[in-house]
Amino acid sequence: MSGFEELLASALDGDRRALAKLLTIVERGGEESRRLLATVYPRAGTAHVVGVTGPPGAGKSTLVNQLIGQVRAGDDEVAALLVDPSSPFSGGAILGDRIRMQDRVSDPGVYARSMASRGQLGGVSDAAPKAVVVLDAVGFPYIVLETVGVGQAEVDIVESAHTTLVVLNPGWGDSIQAAKAGLLEIGDVFVVNKADRPGVESTVADLNHMLHDGPERAWTPPVLTTVAQTGEGADALWDAVRDHQQYLTGEAGEAVARRQAEREVRLAMHELLVQRAEQVVDQAAFEASIAEVIARRLDPWTAAAELLRS
Amino acid sequence: MSGFEELLASALDGDRRALAKLLTIVERGGEESRRLLATVYPRAGTAHVVGVTGPPGAGKSTLVNQLIGQVRAGDDEVAALLVDPSSPFSGGAILGDRIRMQDRVSDPGVYARSMASRGQLGGVSDAAPKAVVVLDAVGFPYIVLETVGVGQAEVDIVESAHTTLVVLNPGWGDSIQAAKAGLLEIGDVFVVNKADRPGVESTVADLNHMLHDGPERAWTPPVLTTVAQTGEGADALWDAVRDHQQYLTGEAGEAVARRQAEREVRLAMHELLVQRAEQVVDQAAFEASIAEVIARRLDPWTAAAELLRS
Repeated sequence: MSGFEELLASALDGDRRALAKLLTIVERGGEESRRLLATVYPRAGTAHVVGVTGPPGAGKSTLVNQLIGQVRAGDDEVAALLVDPSSPFSGGAILGDRIRMQDRVSDPGVYARSMASRGQLGGVSDAAPKAVVVLDAVGFPYIVLETVGVGQAEVDIVESAHTTLVVLNPGWGDSIQAAKAGLLEIGDVFVVNKADRPGVESTVADLNHMLHDGPERAWTPPVLTTVAQTGEGADALWDAVRDHQQYLTGEAGEAVARRQAEREVRLAMHELLVQRAEQVVDQAAFEASIAEVIARRLDPWTAAAELLRS
Repeated sequence: MSGFEELLASALDGDRRALAKLLTIVERGGEESRRLLATVYPRAGTAHVVGVTGPPGAGKSTLVNQLIGQVRAGDDEVAALLVDPSSPFSGGAILGDRIRMQDRVSDPGVYARSMASRGQLGGVSDAAPKAVVVLDAVGFPYIVLETVGVGQAEVDIVESAHTTLVVLNPGWGDSIQAAKAGLLEIGDVFVVNKADRPGVESTVADLNHMLHDGPERAWTPPVLTTVAQTGEGADALWDAVRDHQQYLTGEAGEAVARRQAEREVRLAMHELLVQRAEQVVDQAAFEASIAEVIARRLDPWTAAAELLRS
């Protein structure tokens, strides 16, 4: 038996250290990761994945802690993955979050981990959806995926979730900011957190107005309010997530599964092609092209085509 | 002469409608875009590109308007590009910003445009850096690149700028949020906007503390304050941008040019490979693979490898 197969057997028995090692394999990528994923993929597909996104400072981490509490109150196990933009300099996750994620680590029914999400060429070889497959395969019925930022890459990340929770705050730029950031169309459930602050009613009203302004949809995203610090509203929020989970048992769920399968296969092709290009392209030719591009004797697009042709 | 060459000649003569059509060609992509870029690339390389990023609602657009005013006070022309996440549903830019960008359109020395930034596979075939090449080539000495969100893709976008301006607000999560979003390491100039609100001193102090906490750098990012609504501090902010521009005339500028050339060539290779894959992969084979993946008889990574092999 190779290394990961032993680890997988242990992880399936509930060994969290083995699970952590499997996720490190996935994060590292390469051939072992591919074999691991091929092995576990048939076991996955039963977890409900909840994506949590929203602007920095909206209280996503605190709310995720409350949601974990809700899942645990129902006695289900839950994994929480904080998808962290690795800095172009440090390449690392932010220590503060790693620490915060430890809050519930004493509960063996909770597994928390932060994970870098950035590939060599801008977020492509994203380990998060692969980590979700592993967590799903080892039996977590709920997986919470939290993003740090709120941008395009983060929208991509939550697209791998079944239920996307968008967390906003009262008065956060009059909801128009949520629209600008592309959040209105990706959310299945909206929550105005820090609802003990002024302006909560108008933010909720604005959101409801904007969400119901478009074409009619089979699922109407509810807008809830929470005070994550105290836990107020967390139970109703979790009920809304469960409602959406229930909704996905029908045709809607099949559409989501199909969209996600297409997305994963495309991303995987993409990643393979980029890896291949990195292997195939001659370093000396690359350096020579770069020198020409810097001197503006050659444009980057022609340079790329020539490098790939050779 | 083909279409774009006539347009280019007109755009070089200051025809904004011709310029708009060139940018549409770039946005559309494909062979004409590639020929256009190859043609204009040797003319580009003199503009100073200022990237503006920060959380939604921080006042980036208002601040960009003020910066445009500063550039115009010095009688230079300026182009402003709002890089907009296209929604996965609408595929479009947000109308509100298009309108807001029109504020200064009556000034012929200002060209403003919003532009979608999302490729088919998640932000890869990003038109923004290409639009910058065109704007640079037709002679704008300053180009301001504003992002809507604040996530990984946005960090990538501002990496194509020479000077990156990070816009925060007083008390915005105690600057730790800026660190979490990976903003501290990408900013060349930091500005705490809405500085008429409480908490500005502590936010500035926190930022200064965090920015000076790391290894010593040749350029120490200054932390300024503005009230974009009134224009307070905009002149000092523009001076800081100019200082950074001056700093880049040395070795630091060569390093930036090199990094950007490498980045553009890599991204261009990446984009070409993805396009090729889309052309090469047989649609029926793709559909068959997706069905297997949905049924969990095949994992997406093996499916991708098989599709690319055939």
